[in-house]
Parts: sequence; C-alpha cells; structure tokens
Amino acid sequence: MSITVAVDAMGGDVGLKVTVPASIQFLSQHSDVNLILVGDAVAIEAMLKASNAPLERIRVQHAAEVVGMDEAPQLALKNKKDSSMRVAINQVKDGAAQAAVSAGNTGALMATARFVLKTLPGIDRPAIAKMMPNMKGTSCVLDLGANVDCTPEQLLQFGIMGAELVAALGLKANPSVGLLNIGSEDIKGNQTAKLAGELLKDSGLNYYGNVEGNDIYKGTVDVVVTDGFTGNVALKTSEGLAHMIAAFLREEFTRSWWTRLCALAAMPVLKRFKARTDSRRYNGASLLGLRGIVVKSHGGTDALGFRFALEQAYEEARSDVIGHIADRVARHIDNLKRPDTVETH
Amino acid sequence: MSITVAVDAMGGDVGLKVTVPASIQFLSQHSDVNLILVGDAVAIEAMLKASNAPLERIRVQHAAEVVGMDEAPQLALKNKKDSSMRVAINQVKDGAAQAAVSAGNTGALMATARFVLKTLPGIDRPAIAKMMPNMKGTSCVLDLGANVDCTPEQLLQFGIMGAELVAALGLKANPSVGLLNIGSEDIKGNQTAKLAGELLKDSGLNYYGNVEGNDIYKGTVDVVVTDGFTGNVALKTSEGLAHMIAAFLREEFTRSWWTRLCALAAMPVLKRFKARTDSRRYNGASLLGLRGIVVKSHGGTDALGFRFALEQAYEEARSDVIGHIADRVARHIDNLKRPDTVETH
Repeated sequence: MSITVAVDAMGGDVGLKVTVPASIQFLSQHSDVNLILVGDAVAIEAMLKASNAPLERIRVQHAAEVVGMDEAPQLALKNKKDSSMRVAINQVKDGAAQAAVSAGNTGALMATARFVLKTLPGIDRPAIAKMMPNMKGTSCVLDLGANVDCTPEQLLQFGIMGAELVAALGLKANPSVGLLNIGSEDIKGNQTAKLAGELLKDSGLNYYGNVEGNDIYKGTVDVVVTDGFTGNVALKTSEGLAHMIAAFLREEFTRSWWTRLCALAAMPVLKRFKARTDSRRYNGASLLGLRGIVVKSHGGTDALGFRFALEQAYEEARSDVIGHIADRVARHIDNLKRPDTVETH
Repeated sequence: MSITVAVDAMGGDVGLKVTVPASIQFLSQHSDVNLILVGDAVAIEAMLKASNAPLERIRVQHAAEVVGMDEAPQLALKNKKDSSMRVAINQVKDGAAQAAVSAGNTGALMATARFVLKTLPGIDRPAIAKMMPNMKGTSCVLDLGANVDCTPEQLLQFGIMGAELVAALGLKANPSVGLLNIGSEDIKGNQTAKLAGELLKDSGLNYYGNVEGNDIYKGTVDVVVTDGFTGNVALKTSEGLAHMIAAFLREEFTRSWWTRLCALAAMPVLKRFKARTDSRRYNGASLLGLRGIVVKSHGGTDALGFRFALEQAYEEARSDVIGHIADRVARHIDNLKRPDTVETH
C-alpha cells in the first residue's frame, strides 16, 4: 500500500527552499510514497522542474494564502481558509492524503487541525507528542504545549495516546508510562498530578508511576506524560541547555591555534558526537488525538530536519497509529466507565 | 567582620567524609570565617585531629540524631529535635552563626528552617533559589521545588527575593526579572502566570516579561521566576540532559583505541570544557524568604561541591542578603497596598 503525505510547502521560517528539497529527498528514499505539495503552485512547479524529482509521484495543490509564523491561531483559522496549512490538512480530511506535515505556526496548526479533522471519540483535546532521545533509545513525551491546564482525565488520555504511538511505531510492545512529577513518592506533586496518577494506575496501561525531569533522558519509561505547560518548559529548557553546551564546546575548541589543532585531531569523534546529538534527527512532533495524522516540524529547521518530520508522518501512516489510538481509547473509556466506579448518587 | 557558618556535618549521601574535608578547605581559603561543625562530636573531632585544620576557627557542636535522606519532613521536624540539621539551623536562630549549610533531605531542611527561623514579614513561603550558568554568566532561578502550587503574589515575592539576591551578591545593580512561561506574548500561559505577570509589571522591579525555557540558558534575564513544580522539572531535566550529553561524549571518545588517541590529543581542551560545565561549581541552593541564611547542598556532591555551597552561604552572609530582601519586601508591600489599588467595597 502506498502512502500519500500532504506537505504544507510554505510553512516554517524559510518555506519552499526547505520543504521542496526535503520532499524530493524523502521521495527518493521511499518508493511507496506520493506527495501533495501545497502552496504557491507556480513557485513549487518551477522548483520541481529545476530538480530531478520523480514528478509522477508528486501532485502540486495550489493554495493562495500563507499563515504567518506569529499570526493569532483563531484569526488564521477564521480568515485564511485557503492557506497552505489548511489546504494540506484538508487533503487528510478528504482522504486524499494519510498525513499532513507543516513547519508553520504551532498554535494555528493545532487550531486548524482540530477544527478540520476533529478529535477522536474520548479525546478532549489533542496533545503535542515528540520522540525524544535518551540514554537507552527514545521515549515519547507529551503534551509539549498544546494544553496549558490539564485535567487528570486528559493526562490519562495522553498516556494512552503516547503508549499507542510507541507501540504502533514498533518501538516497544507494552510501553511503560510515567507521570512527570517532582518526586518519586506518590504523595508529592500537585493535586492534578495526584489524581492523574490514580487514573493511570487503574488504566490497564503499563504504568510505572512518577518520574522526574532527569528520567526523561535516563530513559526510565517509554512514555512521559505531562501537562503542556510543564512539557513545553522541559522541552525548551533542554533546547537551551543543549545549545549552550554546544557553544561552550565550540568555544573551547576554537580558543587558540593550539586548541584548533586539538579539534582537528578529535574531528572524527566530534563529528560522530555531533551527529548523535543532532536535534534535526528528532524533528517532527505529532498532534495526537485527531482523526488524522498531522506532524509539526520545527519552524527553523533545514531540509534534513524537515525530512525527519516527513519520516515521522510516514511511519505513523504506515503503522495506522490513528486506528490503534482510536481502538485503545474506546477500550479505556469503557474501563473508566465500568459500573463499580461510577458514582450514582 | 568575621562570618560564622554552621555546617550540618552529617547531612548528604556521604556525610562527614564530604563535609569535614570541604569545611577545612573552605577555612583555608577564607581567613575571616569561623565554622560550627554540627553532628557526632567524637567522629568529627577525630577527623579534625587527623587533619591540619585551623582548630581555633572551628567549634564542634554535638547533635545526637541525623535526619534520613528519605525521612518524611514533618516526622523529622516532630521527632528529631537533636538532629545535626536542626541544631545547625538553631545556631543561626541563636545568632551564633550567620548562615547554615546542609546537604540533607531538602523537604526536612525546608520544614525545619521554616519552623525554626520563620519567614520574613511579607513572605508567605520560602523558595529554593539557585544561581545557574548561562551563555552570558549566571542567573537566579526560583522556585526550584519548595512550592508546588503558587499564587501570583508568591511569584511576585520570588521575583523580589531573586532580584535582591542577585543585587546583593554584586552580580547586577538592577537585575532583570522574567517570568517562566510557554510563549513570549502576554496572552500565553495559565491564569496564575497571567496574573503574576501583571503584578510583576507593576512591582517596580526591572521586569522583562515572559521568558521561555531556553531563555534560562540564553541568559535573557538575571532572575527567572517560576512555581516550584515547573522549576523543579526544568532543573532536573537539565541535570538529566547534561548527564546524557556527557555520557555520549565519553562513549564516543572511548569507542576504540583510535578515538582514545583522539581524546588524548584533545585532553587539555576537554578538561577545560569539563571544568566549565562542572555542576559542582554551581552547587548550593538558597532557601530564600527566611529570617536567616540557609543553603542546601546537593545530597550527592563531593567535597569540592560542598565547598561551593559553603561559599554561597558565605557570600550571602557577607552581603547581608536577608537584610536587603527584608527591606525590599517591606517597600514592595507598601507598593502593593497603596490606596488607589485597594478595593474598598
């Protein structure tokens, strides 16, 4: 079965010059993929003609508008019905594509995706999920910023969706789920975390219990559940720290001709280290909980990074993540509603 | 004027073997310091005798009990009135010392310090504050875990205390203060953050506005204000990521005899890099908002790390941080209560 991915070709800080080359490279790596490139048709076609792209597997879909990176989500939703972002998501809704990828404005993408595709039955609000590297491999962390305040029930939904994503991608059969908190004892944390912990414990998921910030990178669990405020701070703090450490390393190796010589000697090792910690390899966050696959690429990434976001969308479509999540959520809703836990007074 | 610091010699994962050598080294670096070493007097005196410590500047204060690292704070407070932690804090209360330092159980230390020393007028609850490295120098981040749920007023108090700490330590005359949030626009974030932002804006502090997680390490502001839940996750996530990056770097350089040779060539640079990112150099978190200086050392640190915690206590005592905070809080309370903002109905 072939997979069709709709690409918001205009999204991101750079737009076409990143998305089109990434799309062409991506096609060359997967013979079972077709792409719909959405945006300024004239510009896209000009770029395709100048390339050696497999044109038989590309369809260009014109969209006259572009959502600005700082545009208010609700205004974009209301006023830009012919934006490349929206038209790309429409392809998923209409069944023309199995997934949409955009490097555009996160808020607008979330609002548009939610409006166009709707959430799955049993899911209150979609979450932003990302596979993040750790000492043992990768783990799924969610929510990374879509939902500032979360109810315990929403945190349970995140746990279910994250576990299903990890399982569907074939990374783990029965993924362990941890709740991000500030202490390993159940008594710690705020009220929402306490109640969410109880729900997760009774959920039938492979629930580990509370985890702390350092557990994200230790790889203690396969899925880290958190509200969007805390998750976003953890993600951005990580980006900032990684950037600082890289800058310090560069500074030390370029301090003098002597340290530059040291760097030269260590170059093969430093290159491997750099490749291993390259954030572009982990680009592509999933908007989970929708009735279709939508992947958000980092707005400032390059063609390599964007290609990894396409890869994420492809893997999710191939493994039918949405079907798996829908099934599991349906099962869990029944669990949560079983008679002996319903208060009847 | 000489400074006396009371040391909980039994606290931490290791106890005496870390605290006593660190104390002796610390004394050798500051001729104006006296120490009160609190704990098992026989064991401490034996260690001192076997060393070349300046005994005329050390007083050993016996304490028969030790608070366990996992002991419930309220139980420790109730049952261990002769713990090394409590007796050390008593030295500050009694005026025998200007500061207390402990590597013990954070929760117990906070509960005991709060009970014994009380909070300053105008401060609801103390916060854990830490000077953290960034691209430009250091910034103060608080709260790092003492207060899970915070009111907007508490966040304002944190801002005031953090700014006063940075100013008193002589790092910046009018420190900029940022509120940790998930977007740079005022409209983002949860309700508490929104209200806290308004209070900070009207506070007379050098308020920058919202900052995101990456700004902590960018050095965008001198003081980063956050609730204890988010702050703790940011801190622990940073610890986890730093640990993972260090592990990856080590793995790459020890992969084969060839990479080990590369490491050897790059050793002077790698050493400098390691020293620069050494977390022990930033050890020592301040329990701010109390009527006395209490510094918490990381429980698992070594003598070098513990020495930096002693250094933090010394600097705070020397610069009269408590006096400065008390003054500023008093001024701000008046500001907050000025007639035209008081609702009179």
